[in-house]
Amino acid sequence: MNSSVTILGCQSATPRVNSHTTSQVLLMKNRHFLIDCGEGTQVQLRKYKFSFAKFNHIFISHLHGDHFFGLIGLLSTFALHGREKTLHIYAPKGLEEVINLQFEVTQSKSRATFTIEFHELSSAKSELIFEDKKVEVYTIPLKHRIYTNGFLFKEKTEERTLNIDAVRKYPEIEVCDYHNIKKGKDFVREDSSIIENSILTFDPPKPKSYAFCSDTSYLPSIVEIVKNVDLLYHESTFLEDRKDMTIKTGHSTAKEAATIAKMANAKKLILGHFSSRYFNLDTFKSEAQEVFENVIVANDGLNVRL
Amino acid sequence: MNSSVTILGCQSATPRVNSHTTSQVLLMKNRHFLIDCGEGTQVQLRKYKFSFAKFNHIFISHLHGDHFFGLIGLLSTFALHGREKTLHIYAPKGLEEVINLQFEVTQSKSRATFTIEFHELSSAKSELIFEDKKVEVYTIPLKHRIYTNGFLFKEKTEERTLNIDAVRKYPEIEVCDYHNIKKGKDFVREDSSIIENSILTFDPPKPKSYAFCSDTSYLPSIVEIVKNVDLLYHESTFLEDRKDMTIKTGHSTAKEAATIAKMANAKKLILGHFSSRYFNLDTFKSEAQEVFENVIVANDGLNVRL
Repeated sequence: MNSSVTILGCQSATPRVNSHTTSQVLLMKNRHFLIDCGEGTQVQLRKYKFSFAKFNHIFISHLHGDHFFGLIGLLSTFALHGREKTLHIYAPKGLEEVINLQFEVTQSKSRATFTIEFHELSSAKSELIFEDKKVEVYTIPLKHRIYTNGFLFKEKTEERTLNIDAVRKYPEIEVCDYHNIKKGKDFVREDSSIIENSILTFDPPKPKSYAFCSDTSYLPSIVEIVKNVDLLYHESTFLEDRKDMTIKTGHSTAKEAATIAKMANAKKLILGHFSSRYFNLDTFKSEAQEVFENVIVANDGLNVRL
Repeated sequence: MNSSVTILGCQSATPRVNSHTTSQVLLMKNRHFLIDCGEGTQVQLRKYKFSFAKFNHIFISHLHGDHFFGLIGLLSTFALHGREKTLHIYAPKGLEEVINLQFEVTQSKSRATFTIEFHELSSAKSELIFEDKKVEVYTIPLKHRIYTNGFLFKEKTEERTLNIDAVRKYPEIEVCDYHNIKKGKDFVREDSSIIENSILTFDPPKPKSYAFCSDTSYLPSIVEIVKNVDLLYHESTFLEDRKDMTIKTGHSTAKEAATIAKMANAKKLILGHFSSRYFNLDTFKSEAQEVFENVIVANDGLNVRL
């Protein structure tokens, strides 16, 4: 399955009848990552047919309500479903207390069906916060009114793929040799002659990457972290016509988001986190395209391949 | 405006794509009362065109998530809108701490725009918790897995209405006498003869009442409190086929809800808080109607006059 991101919500501040606050699902190497969890996220997950059981890692950028008020409802539903697997939540200090207090007042015995492991984020520098065989996740320190991180998700380089037709031409290569060949090693015959690895294998697929940057002021220091990213989601709460508001509120304009995408040499840019003052979002695209061509305007349900 | 209740959500446990957890708006004597506040309530309020500014009193039955997880989002939106009026919340112990902690971690300066007055409910007996010139509200102690109250909303008896045609036949009655006549007093002439009040006035409209009872096991002790109520909302999470579940979970069947309505001599019964195990809700109506005729099955957006 190709890696892709699905937008569950991209409205700023408060949910509306047809648009939700921030939440996204990233599918990467068959892993399901939930990024932010605005009110109504559990309903959006149902609407777009995601299985709750597949989520083991939730990343929360910051503790403004439009990015986490849906979390307690989602966790409660996990408990009602009898979830047993440990859930990992990566979030700033404070969220654990909020979640635990709510489970306490609701007297949820069902909560005990599974463990939540909170990974408290506090560094001002980018750090590796998750890693498994196929994926790694780094924080992207952002600049907002409150401590905030974006997240960079990177596929790891996979093993080389066997060129099985080529391999079969050499009867001296046995199945037990495949492991080393996929690791990139040449094959050494008994007479010490060599079959070069490049004859026996194909290059692995190029690892993909996704960067989520919301909420933030225009912050050129993130360019180094998200350099050459395949897909960049960057908030654009406002257009240039209300640049005064970005300073007051710690947000960005569409043009600023595009400038980050251009400097980072991103392949694609998704704009999101729109202020409800704007009804026509086409202008976000045109403003951004003055700087960076490959722009997509987010909406609830949008799915974009990396 | 006639008093009426609007169902914002009547699903039990967790919200679904097209059905929300418990929340209702009661309009009574031009007051807007919000009863319970499941996740997504603020969106439902927008959908059914209620003005946020009109709500000054919120009643929370109990601290299970499907009855209050939408509250912090709604209050945050009030703050974002710059609300200034004091908001009164009637709820069990624990909610104040939950709300305050969330405002604290979100570092909401905007929260300071208005005061929330929490009225902590703890009595096991029915008590008057709100009263103004036209309406009074009593708790209805319920029996659930956690401390829970229903709420009885009662219009007060209004003043008698002047029969202005009748009044004008008596030139000795002056405008300054209207006050006493509307209070039901006879008019006494200078010669001590009497014009009876019943000649000069009409009966005031009959005061209406609404009882909200959710969540609860079958509890005949509430009958006395809700006696002769105009409209009774009573939870019916299950049908009789799963009576075992009502005992385990502290809920009622449709038949039990209807039995309460019959014993209380209610005029109308709304059933709600349905378990997601049931797809066809018609059966709730037919089961209840074996006991009590005037039954309505709730759905999101339903509006019922008292």
